[in-house]
Amino acid sequence: MNEPAKKLAGKFVVIDGPDGAGKTTQLKLLADHLRGEGVAVREVCDPGGTVIGEKIRAILLDNSHAEMAVGCEVLLYMASRVQLTVEVIGPALQKDECVLCDRWVSSTVAYQVAGGAATANEILDVYKIALRDMRPDLTIILNVPAEIGLARLTAEPDRMEAKGLEFHQKVRQLFLRQAEAAPQIFAVVDGRGEIQEVQRRIRDVIAKWDWK
Amino acid sequence: MNEPAKKLAGKFVVIDGPDGAGKTTQLKLLADHLRGEGVAVREVCDPGGTVIGEKIRAILLDNSHAEMAVGCEVLLYMASRVQLTVEVIGPALQKDECVLCDRWVSSTVAYQVAGGAATANEILDVYKIALRDMRPDLTIILNVPAEIGLARLTAEPDRMEAKGLEFHQKVRQLFLRQAEAAPQIFAVVDGRGEIQEVQRRIRDVIAKWDWK
Repeated sequence: MNEPAKKLAGKFVVIDGPDGAGKTTQLKLLADHLRGEGVAVREVCDPGGTVIGEKIRAILLDNSHAEMAVGCEVLLYMASRVQLTVEVIGPALQKDECVLCDRWVSSTVAYQVAGGAATANEILDVYKIALRDMRPDLTIILNVPAEIGLARLTAEPDRMEAKGLEFHQKVRQLFLRQAEAAPQIFAVVDGRGEIQEVQRRIRDVIAKWDWK
Repeated sequence: MNEPAKKLAGKFVVIDGPDGAGKTTQLKLLADHLRGEGVAVREVCDPGGTVIGEKIRAILLDNSHAEMAVGCEVLLYMASRVQLTVEVIGPALQKDECVLCDRWVSSTVAYQVAGGAATANEILDVYKIALRDMRPDLTIILNVPAEIGLARLTAEPDRMEAKGLEFHQKVRQLFLRQAEAAPQIFAVVDGRGEIQEVQRRIRDVIAKWDWK
């Protein structure tokens, strides 16, 4: 095993951030790059990634569910996460794969706290009960102003995307606040600019990260 | 307002117990009886009772989901419960209706603890975060031996019902243990015998209950 493969074996890395930050594109590029370096990579997406999780995802993002309570949202996201952990992430880490995950609990803390009916501590308490010690080794927050993120969205917005600029500005602040509060597990990467430029910043963080 | 209507205004009463205990039949009879006495009754069913809750219920009871993690189950039941509380139970109690609910968190403590991957305390901790002070004033456990309960089921069993006798015996014990531990909010009613006889026992508990 070469150096990157050794360092990233069994590591759980999340790419998170506001809508339109480029998470999905960047995660795919990072996965290809790491595979090229000999790392066994498992790409996953939260919510979803299992039969049950995809059904939960469909409920969460359905635009007709305007009446969904924030507490219900938090629990649905967490339920999908538990299923993904048991079926996919846990077994992959056990096999020393490097798991790259598109969104994780940092999104719940950002979006549902912005939604107003839950605190970050309440969400993290539920997380601890539901997922125990299954925590990311590193969460990379792609940082883009809400205006830029929303302008990048091309498809019909889902229930979360459709919530308006002020909501998304709050979401971005909540991402940044989490990263500030826990620099040992969060890194912020400037998500503005060319795709390859942003990708270089992400690879840089990965290469220099102090993996415990 | 007459005496029963006054006593039961704004009260939250749950009928719970093992599969086949007769909860749904008894709840309907009780609702009719109380309406006859002038009580404004709202009947609800958990999980479900809202558009979102019915979709969650469908995921939970789908027989093809053998792989569902118990932690995921707990969170899905709780998510449906939050939505039902926000949309239906909370507003009904505010209007001084008496809410009669078929199953509640006592079922999660019984079934998911029997399922083995969660403790009663973990479930109740999630409940407290998700539902705060929205607790039943009285939970009536219909007590029938698991063999009798299972024998009463006539339709194709759902995912929970299909789990076998030993599981259902454990479920029954977990219902009884909850009632023993908190007699100020639980009553156990013998669910064996004729429907009208069981109904008389339930009415008796309701009539003599010390409503706070």
